[in-house]
Amino acid sequence: MGGEAEKWVLMVTARTPTNIAVIKYWGKRDETLILPINDSISVTLDPSHLCTTTTVSVSPSFDQDRMWLNGKEISLQGGRFQSCLREIRARAQDVEDKKKGIKINKEDWQKLNLHIASYNNFPTAAGLASSAAGLACLVFSLAKLMNLKEDNSQLSAIARQGSGSACRSLYGGFVKWFMGKEENGSDSLAVQLADEKHWDELVIIIAVVSARQKETSSTSGMRDTVETSPLIEHRAKEVVPKRITEMEGAIQNRDFATFARLACTDSNQFHAVCLDTYPPIFYMNDTSHRIISCVEKWNRAEETPQVAYTFDAGPNAVMIARNRKTAALLLQRLLYNFPPQSDTDLDSYIIGDKSILQDAGIKDMKDVEALTAPPEVKDKIPTQKSKGDVSYFICTRPGGGPVVLSDETHALLDPLTGLPK
Amino acid sequence: MGGEAEKWVLMVTARTPTNIAVIKYWGKRDETLILPINDSISVTLDPSHLCTTTTVSVSPSFDQDRMWLNGKEISLQGGRFQSCLREIRARAQDVEDKKKGIKINKEDWQKLNLHIASYNNFPTAAGLASSAAGLACLVFSLAKLMNLKEDNSQLSAIARQGSGSACRSLYGGFVKWFMGKEENGSDSLAVQLADEKHWDELVIIIAVVSARQKETSSTSGMRDTVETSPLIEHRAKEVVPKRITEMEGAIQNRDFATFARLACTDSNQFHAVCLDTYPPIFYMNDTSHRIISCVEKWNRAEETPQVAYTFDAGPNAVMIARNRKTAALLLQRLLYNFPPQSDTDLDSYIIGDKSILQDAGIKDMKDVEALTAPPEVKDKIPTQKSKGDVSYFICTRPGGGPVVLSDETHALLDPLTGLPK
Repeated sequence: MGGEAEKWVLMVTARTPTNIAVIKYWGKRDETLILPINDSISVTLDPSHLCTTTTVSVSPSFDQDRMWLNGKEISLQGGRFQSCLREIRARAQDVEDKKKGIKINKEDWQKLNLHIASYNNFPTAAGLASSAAGLACLVFSLAKLMNLKEDNSQLSAIARQGSGSACRSLYGGFVKWFMGKEENGSDSLAVQLADEKHWDELVIIIAVVSARQKETSSTSGMRDTVETSPLIEHRAKEVVPKRITEMEGAIQNRDFATFARLACTDSNQFHAVCLDTYPPIFYMNDTSHRIISCVEKWNRAEETPQVAYTFDAGPNAVMIARNRKTAALLLQRLLYNFPPQSDTDLDSYIIGDKSILQDAGIKDMKDVEALTAPPEVKDKIPTQKSKGDVSYFICTRPGGGPVVLSDETHALLDPLTGLPK
Repeated sequence: MGGEAEKWVLMVTARTPTNIAVIKYWGKRDETLILPINDSISVTLDPSHLCTTTTVSVSPSFDQDRMWLNGKEISLQGGRFQSCLREIRARAQDVEDKKKGIKINKEDWQKLNLHIASYNNFPTAAGLASSAAGLACLVFSLAKLMNLKEDNSQLSAIARQGSGSACRSLYGGFVKWFMGKEENGSDSLAVQLADEKHWDELVIIIAVVSARQKETSSTSGMRDTVETSPLIEHRAKEVVPKRITEMEGAIQNRDFATFARLACTDSNQFHAVCLDTYPPIFYMNDTSHRIISCVEKWNRAEETPQVAYTFDAGPNAVMIARNRKTAALLLQRLLYNFPPQSDTDLDSYIIGDKSILQDAGIKDMKDVEALTAPPEVKDKIPTQKSKGDVSYFICTRPGGGPVVLSDETHALLDPLTGLPK
């Protein structure tokens, strides 16, 4: 170790995306190592709209590992954080920063303490896979700080031990998480099926749905499903393997009809096994159901799918439109059925890539109010429009994987003190 | 044939109960004969609170078959009505009414026309198995009119061709519908497992839940499930047969814990395969989910089930309480969570056996307003009480099978004209 008066702070800042599964992960075969009972496939979401930024720092002046999430200090004592930290430290290499005159030998990492600050550019509580992006970012940024030789796929197997779906956030585009066969989990890792440029027409609209009830955590939920659902084993062993093969083909061939059918049916089946759990788990609510009905009615009318939907462990809908034109038509339908509350302005109701709003020809609330029922709605009786059922919409697209942010202005920790800025 | 100037009218009036499946029927292996893909078990509901009354009449003066439902003439042209009428006429026997001087030879029934009037003592549109009671009553009353030799089990195989679940309304108490093996459906019929006196402690409370959306008919719903759900076959072949055996044992031994677990998990699994259908079918809504949560929370707190719930193809909850004491405690919880709207009086909000209300110590709306959170609700924060989510509650119990009402005052047709009174 070196550096003047041991006062130095070395740090790395990275940004990692969230991801949405289109073939779902639900059920573990090993609770501690977080090994799943089936493969899963996800789409990485554009980090400009949804991502975690994490700064990790090391200094001989730190007297313990500490972490801040969105500015608030949180405990690192949880088994999952500890697993990740242990696995990363075990693979740490020699690090030298000649400019700062710092040299850390790989053995030193066992003794040095870390400060970690993490920030989500979206509401943590909104059920938008913040833990996936968060754990992936923690592992990725620490791997850079400690100069790990492992590639992203090998890092994904470490991130997996923090939060299962985090392993899929180590890559951009379309990602497959292999369940693996090894007892130690070494082959339960993520690989990239295709990058985000492979299929760049897709547009994603997320409806953040207001929830009335507190939700079951996915950890306890999937444990209960594995223990009590008579259908989950059949799903994992007989249904998912075929869907994985089909979905890989659909992504390869940019076959939207197959992609959409698989994404929708697999989301529905995941929620079906939740309902088959005892006591039953409900993640979707009436608003989620209405969004599905709206999309299904339109897809049927067009005779080929325009939009796919998928729901994670909560009521939020993630809708994937086949292209920008379709996305604009979808947004019109969504705003017609789920207009904002009178005290909400359009600018905060549609966030992310607002250009879709322009494509839809909607400039202000008057345009929203002027929307008419889409042609697939047969009975033109105005449907019940409950303002406030959707909190807001996020317009985004498939996006890239983790990146290091070398510009120090992005750092969340002070480079001198190693404390949150 | 005989009778003065052929002006005679011969008629029979009967009353038939509805039933609620506790191991569900969902999916046909033959659409025309209505042959199911699995056995099912039901509880017959007390006809004093929920039943169909049907008067069937015959006269040489009738120039066509006609039917009235709840006072309104309806078409008898549907294939299902026609199947039942054909099957019954084929089995008709000689009938003689010496008092009236009428003699009908069995061959005459092919030429004679029928007038049928049917009345439900509960709202037809409320999703309370009105077609089951209705078809069962049609078949039962016609069988009496035409002097059929068949027993109720054989009649159930005819009623089945009108509406699958109608076959289980030919008996009181606890009824099993065998799926059967024959291609012609002759062994797909109902038998009584135990009569209603066998387990007379049970109390049933039905929550009629306000629905926002039009529901998928069960006929098209189950067809879609069989065609598209990857889970339905596993349910029908692997899961249900075990549950049928267990449920028969639970009824035999009046083992409420097993009965409740099976009823709840099988209802949930039925709704799970609906969700696994493409496009997905939603019968339960947020109110249904809240009722389940309320019951599950209480059952967990008591460590042994107090109440079972089951939902058919709609949002209404059918709750079965282990005894009257439990039913009173259930009613308190339901009224606490789902109070009536301010313009609804208690007397029309709780219908059927109102004595449960007295057991619950509730005399008027002041008593409802004074209800406090049950002990199993940990966070004493008042939950959102949406008045109007439940339209009304029906208190009832397991009940008896079809009966002939010999008192002519019950007849729905005029004994002279054969037209609705």
